[in-house]
Amino acid sequence: MSRTDVAQFAIGVDYGTNSVRALVVDLADGSEIATHVFDYPSGENGILLDPKNHNLARQNPADYIKGFYQSVGGAVRKARRVAGFSPHRVVGIGIDATGSTPLPVGADGMPLAMDKRFRDNPDAHAWLWKDHTAAAEAVEITRKASRSKYRYTSKCGGMYSSEWWWSKILHCKRTAPKVFDAACAWVELADFVPAFVTGNLDPRTMARGICAAGHKAMWNEAWGGLPSKRLLNGLSPGLSRVAEQYADRTMTADRKAGLLTDEVAKKVHLPAGTPVAVGAFDAHMGAIGAGVRPGTLVKIIGTSTCDITVWPLSEHLPDIPCLCGIVPGSVLPDMYGLEAGQSAVGDIFNWFVRHVACGEPAGAADGHAKLTAAAERLKPGASGLLALDWNNGNRTVLVDARLAGLLVGQTLHTTAAEIYRALVEATAFGALTIINRFEQYGVRIDEVVNCGGIAEKNPMVMQIYADVTGRAMKISRSAQTCALGAAMAGAVVAGKKAGGHATFAAAQKAMCGLKPKVYKPNAAAHKIYKELYALYSQLHDAFGTTAWKGNLHNVMKKLLDIRNGARK
Amino acid sequence: MSRTDVAQFAIGVDYGTNSVRALVVDLADGSEIATHVFDYPSGENGILLDPKNHNLARQNPADYIKGFYQSVGGAVRKARRVAGFSPHRVVGIGIDATGSTPLPVGADGMPLAMDKRFRDNPDAHAWLWKDHTAAAEAVEITRKASRSKYRYTSKCGGMYSSEWWWSKILHCKRTAPKVFDAACAWVELADFVPAFVTGNLDPRTMARGICAAGHKAMWNEAWGGLPSKRLLNGLSPGLSRVAEQYADRTMTADRKAGLLTDEVAKKVHLPAGTPVAVGAFDAHMGAIGAGVRPGTLVKIIGTSTCDITVWPLSEHLPDIPCLCGIVPGSVLPDMYGLEAGQSAVGDIFNWFVRHVACGEPAGAADGHAKLTAAAERLKPGASGLLALDWNNGNRTVLVDARLAGLLVGQTLHTTAAEIYRALVEATAFGALTIINRFEQYGVRIDEVVNCGGIAEKNPMVMQIYADVTGRAMKISRSAQTCALGAAMAGAVVAGKKAGGHATFAAAQKAMCGLKPKVYKPNAAAHKIYKELYALYSQLHDAFGTTAWKGNLHNVMKKLLDIRNGARK
Repeated sequence: MSRTDVAQFAIGVDYGTNSVRALVVDLADGSEIATHVFDYPSGENGILLDPKNHNLARQNPADYIKGFYQSVGGAVRKARRVAGFSPHRVVGIGIDATGSTPLPVGADGMPLAMDKRFRDNPDAHAWLWKDHTAAAEAVEITRKASRSKYRYTSKCGGMYSSEWWWSKILHCKRTAPKVFDAACAWVELADFVPAFVTGNLDPRTMARGICAAGHKAMWNEAWGGLPSKRLLNGLSPGLSRVAEQYADRTMTADRKAGLLTDEVAKKVHLPAGTPVAVGAFDAHMGAIGAGVRPGTLVKIIGTSTCDITVWPLSEHLPDIPCLCGIVPGSVLPDMYGLEAGQSAVGDIFNWFVRHVACGEPAGAADGHAKLTAAAERLKPGASGLLALDWNNGNRTVLVDARLAGLLVGQTLHTTAAEIYRALVEATAFGALTIINRFEQYGVRIDEVVNCGGIAEKNPMVMQIYADVTGRAMKISRSAQTCALGAAMAGAVVAGKKAGGHATFAAAQKAMCGLKPKVYKPNAAAHKIYKELYALYSQLHDAFGTTAWKGNLHNVMKKLLDIRNGARK
Repeated sequence: MSRTDVAQFAIGVDYGTNSVRALVVDLADGSEIATHVFDYPSGENGILLDPKNHNLARQNPADYIKGFYQSVGGAVRKARRVAGFSPHRVVGIGIDATGSTPLPVGADGMPLAMDKRFRDNPDAHAWLWKDHTAAAEAVEITRKASRSKYRYTSKCGGMYSSEWWWSKILHCKRTAPKVFDAACAWVELADFVPAFVTGNLDPRTMARGICAAGHKAMWNEAWGGLPSKRLLNGLSPGLSRVAEQYADRTMTADRKAGLLTDEVAKKVHLPAGTPVAVGAFDAHMGAIGAGVRPGTLVKIIGTSTCDITVWPLSEHLPDIPCLCGIVPGSVLPDMYGLEAGQSAVGDIFNWFVRHVACGEPAGAADGHAKLTAAAERLKPGASGLLALDWNNGNRTVLVDARLAGLLVGQTLHTTAAEIYRALVEATAFGALTIINRFEQYGVRIDEVVNCGGIAEKNPMVMQIYADVTGRAMKISRSAQTCALGAAMAGAVVAGKKAGGHATFAAAQKAMCGLKPKVYKPNAAAHKIYKELYALYSQLHDAFGTTAWKGNLHNVMKKLLDIRNGARK
């Protein structure tokens, strides 16, 4: 690959669930000239688990720091082999991370887990987004926050999640008071890394992103920032200390968090003083990298999904019940960021292959390939099966972690491939439910852009999504939209004068693209899936809501009718 | 093994789904001195299938004839090696068979399928009990028969099944009129074999058993035998010809069908003139062989179950809705025979092992062993799973073939062994539903005796049945209760003078027994299963009935609560 003499670059650093990736991108056309991945060394695939408590998921903050050095350093080293690249042409760095992944920090702003007193205490480590230990706290926060004067939960769909900031911190305060007391402050991973690499770890003045604050900590200008001292101390006396050790303002990702310190710069072979953007969540940066704009829904499909769209701040937007979040500036600075999601998608397919259908985890990749090949040959409706995609609860629109999976329609002839396909279809029905919710509240969805490994590698899944939703499924050109979006933030904070981009819109125009393959809905398949979706909705409401009244006597019979029709 | 000089024997011949077994039994103590099994050579495991129509299941009648010669001949040959046995000491033969398995016969009384014109026509073969091609006819017969003056369906639970005599014959008349027209008469397999081996194949005078007639052909003395000409011709003009080519009376299994012909006797190395009992269904003979009496429920657990008990003719017995049948004399001559059943039990476990969990059918036996070993270690309720046992429809109490399986409560951690156990539990809940139905109508169940391979070989299944039902599970001593019961019929038709037994009660006293191992319910497990059964009943009614109204919002949450409690 060869670059022009004037080529400029940015680096996006994407902190995922199991690894961190750095990506070096050409600002002229978005081409990705080098990438380096660092797998978190601690725990199981980077996650600290507790065999006695499936709900617990923590991470070692030391992995994050080492991960920055290794991933960015490695990517720069690889990029140097590309003609036209030079570290001096890296105009900026952007960082995204999973979240809500809060970590307690000490007086020096460094993670408590790196203090030898707390090295072996999982509660002093980072509380990974998928940690579900704080279910009871989430229920309590939802109840109290919804009743308070400001209806703090109105911007997060009326429900506060066990995966989020306050639930986790409150759970820590109650179950690990020594950790809580030793913590001077709490920081989101997405804010910690920019703060660390730019050398400002003071919890009161560090750059706190609106993305994490708005989506997970109930930050909103309408009530002057974080929830009131009264609410917090009403949950647990002294909890307000966490808010006191927070910033007075939050920032969008087009703003600078600071400049790369000498020490960090040296370790990653970049010039000191390189600007670093305010951090944001992976999905939000990914949406930018996939070209999100009003009317475009970006689906980031992985183990779970994050579904993101935006809506101009200048236009009216009602509160949309049961969305994960509506936060001004959380994706693009001049737009509401709207976030929904499915608690499990790829995780459901993996579960079925690893735990049910194929015995040994060793055969998982092979299992997916075999089952996909067999499932692809099946006709819509021909299995007579229908599933609910709730094996990990339901994030949108039911916002209920205490739900579970369901499969109905099994006969004595049902095959593993049929079940596999039914699980894929279930996630597609879940996806359609989210699209419908957006549109019911006036947020139109004209285009769906998919990102992530499943979208790229599994045409069957994408065709089923097109057939179920009756919409074309487009695929983002980049396989690393989160890192790409982060790199775009790096370009924007550098600014046009420094060789970056003036705005996200300009960066998207230059750097985003779609793959040529578009999955278009098949009319006949869509017709059958409409019938199945009606049954899905019936099960959804019967098992997921308290208002529904009826019986389900029609379900198995209708599935048989659809099956008999489909097999003709 | 050595016998006394005065030992007497009977032979039971049991026509199963895939093979026929002959059993030589000592009348003094029920000891089984020789057995021989003949696998039906035609089709797949003896069943003629249609890859395009999963509902079709036929058998080649030639296999039945060859099967009698081979199984009885083989058993006698083996018995001759036992000291004390001689063919002249065989006092009688009893025959049982699957059903309703009707076959069309020609002018000579021989199966139409053995006529070369019809050799390749599956409709001219035997319509095996599990053939479900006549679903539409069953619905129509139920409707018309229930409305008629005599409420013909009142003795079969209000529903006429697609597996039964008139449904199949009507379906043949409509879809294969050439076969129907060429058939001089129709005969149940359980009647055909005794008729053939005793040389009276005349459809008007051959011995027709009350068991097949009463349970499957709506024969009842209350309306003078078979349903009226009017009903039959109302279903299809000319259908009444089948009733005209039937006997005027039916007989209980303590009656002689006739004497073994010279030709047949020669082929099986027995004396000509050996008395042969009137035929009955396998499960009914099995119930006798397991020691059925008032208060005893015999569960014959195989691919499906047949649940049989009896009630004195002298005591009041109401019509019990949704039982498969209530027929005077169908099991014991002086008792009502009450039959219920589950459409699939072992078939569900086989399905899961073969089609879902273990990939290749080759590994099925190993799969069962592995999954059972893992499932056995699980605590009741600890998986958070609940299933409906309807993969093959529901025979009792919903009498609905158009139902299907259901599994709820799956998470991302659910294992194949947990699902396997949930399927076992589901069949136990189905079993409890049947027991409850009997007792609700005053037929008390004091004792449960289980027969069949699963009951003998899988202690986990039996313990779960005990824990779910809160009742001790006993196991029949004989592994071949159907053939044993048939042999007892042979002993009874021989009579006491000829060295047989005077009555079934006398035969049972001498020849039946239980295994020493009794599975007793564990109180703690029963308590948890009571909670799960309440949820099972909720799903049962929601999906299986039209009257139920409500929602199922509690189901997944309650399963989680039970799970969390069980894991403590």
